[in-house]
Amino acid sequence: MKQSLGAKTLVFPTPVLIVGTYDGAGKPNIAAVAWGGICCSKPPAVAISLRAATYSHGCIVANQAFTVNIPSVSQVHEADYVGIYSGRSENKFEALGLTPVRSELVHAPYIQEFPLVLECKLIHTIEIGLHTQFIGEILDVKAEPAILDAEGRVSVKKLRPFSFSPSDHGYYEVSEFVAKGFSVGAKKQ
Amino acid sequence: MKQSLGAKTLVFPTPVLIVGTYDGAGKPNIAAVAWGGICCSKPPAVAISLRAATYSHGCIVANQAFTVNIPSVSQVHEADYVGIYSGRSENKFEALGLTPVRSELVHAPYIQEFPLVLECKLIHTIEIGLHTQFIGEILDVKAEPAILDAEGRVSVKKLRPFSFSPSDHGYYEVSEFVAKGFSVGAKKQ
Repeated sequence: MKQSLGAKTLVFPTPVLIVGTYDGAGKPNIAAVAWGGICCSKPPAVAISLRAATYSHGCIVANQAFTVNIPSVSQVHEADYVGIYSGRSENKFEALGLTPVRSELVHAPYIQEFPLVLECKLIHTIEIGLHTQFIGEILDVKAEPAILDAEGRVSVKKLRPFSFSPSDHGYYEVSEFVAKGFSVGAKKQ
Repeated sequence: MKQSLGAKTLVFPTPVLIVGTYDGAGKPNIAAVAWGGICCSKPPAVAISLRAATYSHGCIVANQAFTVNIPSVSQVHEADYVGIYSGRSENKFEALGLTPVRSELVHAPYIQEFPLVLECKLIHTIEIGLHTQFIGEILDVKAEPAILDAEGRVSVKKLRPFSFSPSDHGYYEVSEFVAKGFSVGAKKQ
């Protein structure tokens, strides 16, 4: 018998997306976003939700662009820091010793030290409530060669991504291979 | 030096959301959705993207409601099956021996055997391209007592959720605890 937990934001796994933007003065900023994910295949698009009160919200509205940077477990300290402090009062790249790289495709910076980055052009803005959802068309994905497998695809084992639990607020690694998709559930011939 | 992979749908981790709906004849249906996630805290809301060609797309439009069912690793076979076959030609609940439970809050079924379910009322529909994004307000979350910790919160260790890799199409378990959020990255006092 299931137990009611109330109306809560519980989805597993939930990602940890570090969103890069420039502010009006050209200062690079980063924010941590757990409310997001891919939302369309053609055009390839990613959705991220931010509260209007955040510094990054205004930067996205102003520049119509952002990057999404995916951290590895070794960067959990940096990712958590980004989620705790505001770019309104400091330059988080400087505070963390991270290097902002100017995207050549959109007016937004990405993080040189993070293994995987998406460069996005804003295509939809949806006011839901406390959060505004920004949908960005993914113009390019850039990866460190060290996270790619022999076929040039991103390897989960090498990337070592982690998830945020909206329940206990812990970070958990995505690691063990379970099964092959579009395969393990196929009817036996 | 980062390598360009092109404009691709690469976010890690990406969830495996099993979406429950009724069709026009009242037949319960389930679809597998990897493009989705939480998108707002107030109201609590979840976004899922489906192609217009899918059977579930029409069911959501007709009923303005859906459920999101989160599988555990032991249900990877069922989740993958749901993603391979269409509800247009069969009743996937029957094919998999799963039990549809009629939600008392929305006109949609959830899966009795799955450990965690969200009951959602459609509040926004965004046409992005190949995919339509449906945003549902989460009216309630129901969980099996077995996945809750001593404080009544969903435990990642007990739920054992898994992720879909948009890169190699593998399923990977979310397991090892890495660090405490809003804590590991805090400045030392």
